[in-house]
Amino acid sequence: MAASGRTPGRRPGAARTRETILDAARRCFAEDGYAGTSIRRIARDADVDHALVLHFFGTKDALFGVVLRSVPLLSGLVREVGEGGPDGLGERFVRGYLGLWEDPDAGPWLRVVVRAASASPNAAAALTSLIADEVMAVLARRIGGDDAELRANLIGAQLLGVATARYVLRTEPLASAAHEDVVAHLAPLVQHLVTGEAAAP
Amino acid sequence: MAASGRTPGRRPGAARTRETILDAARRCFAEDGYAGTSIRRIARDADVDHALVLHFFGTKDALFGVVLRSVPLLSGLVREVGEGGPDGLGERFVRGYLGLWEDPDAGPWLRVVVRAASASPNAAAALTSLIADEVMAVLARRIGGDDAELRANLIGAQLLGVATARYVLRTEPLASAAHEDVVAHLAPLVQHLVTGEAAAP
Repeated sequence: MAASGRTPGRRPGAARTRETILDAARRCFAEDGYAGTSIRRIARDADVDHALVLHFFGTKDALFGVVLRSVPLLSGLVREVGEGGPDGLGERFVRGYLGLWEDPDAGPWLRVVVRAASASPNAAAALTSLIADEVMAVLARRIGGDDAELRANLIGAQLLGVATARYVLRTEPLASAAHEDVVAHLAPLVQHLVTGEAAAP
Repeated sequence: MAASGRTPGRRPGAARTRETILDAARRCFAEDGYAGTSIRRIARDADVDHALVLHFFGTKDALFGVVLRSVPLLSGLVREVGEGGPDGLGERFVRGYLGLWEDPDAGPWLRVVVRAASASPNAAAALTSLIADEVMAVLARRIGGDDAELRANLIGAQLLGVATARYVLRTEPLASAAHEDVVAHLAPLVQHLVTGEAAAP
């Protein structure tokens, strides 16, 4: 791998090399999961030296964090869904979110992310920081009102739980329930958190 | 470990030995997590031969399943909460459930269970079968009506998501939110699923 055929001292632009490594990392994490992927494996896949991956990204955890941020699944959804204002946001969000999990490209990647966050505290830190910045902060601004950040957090947490049960753990009957039945049950709950009517306990 | 000082051919009753191994397994899983615990480590902790653990339980996954069922946290909560009937079930359940996660004995064990289920497909199967039999089936009977099992599943999935975000990933501001604020937001949602008013999407 060190003998990659390149002339010493001349290599493609750093930006291009970095992008090649990122592509390889995305592929390796998606195919073999977080635990099954090493810096060495990513270097082999990208056809670069192991030390070059370390030079650009430092650690596997740091690289995972950069990969996470380069896949703009949830932030894109939040922006798109939020454009219509708070009315019906619950249904639009639930429908778009379940759609992402059921998408043949996005679904497997989301499963990798959830499994990685559970298996490694560092991956969990990378994921929660991403969710806080790109999902919850945006959602909280759309929601507005008292406790907006807490309510945005609760929406995220509940939908993460539903996706984990339905798509990762495959709990029945939730795993086999029709998309529209799940939307019908969840949309009013998310909408309730959006409008912020917290009933007195 | 093989030389445990016991007279060959005479050992304490099988039931007692089995219980000793289960105690050790519970301790090891709670202290070192699922991945960090081996059959060998449990055998050492129980002061029995490695082969004896295999004889009683077969595999680490099987042993984990038995340990799960021997810790009647959630099933106890479901029975207790269900006794009061459907009215106010949402609030009682949320309050009891958050209380378990905040309990100094139960909380660390629940974190082990969630992490184990994410890291191992076999542990996930053991957990989902436990939840289906001892939590969801009981809850569905209490709830009654159309889609009772699906609604019970959704309650479980949402509360699992909230606990994962609040106690495992420690997402802010949810991780630091006051117990009563979380109850106030979640109780009406769970109650909504209990009474089963699915709004048309």
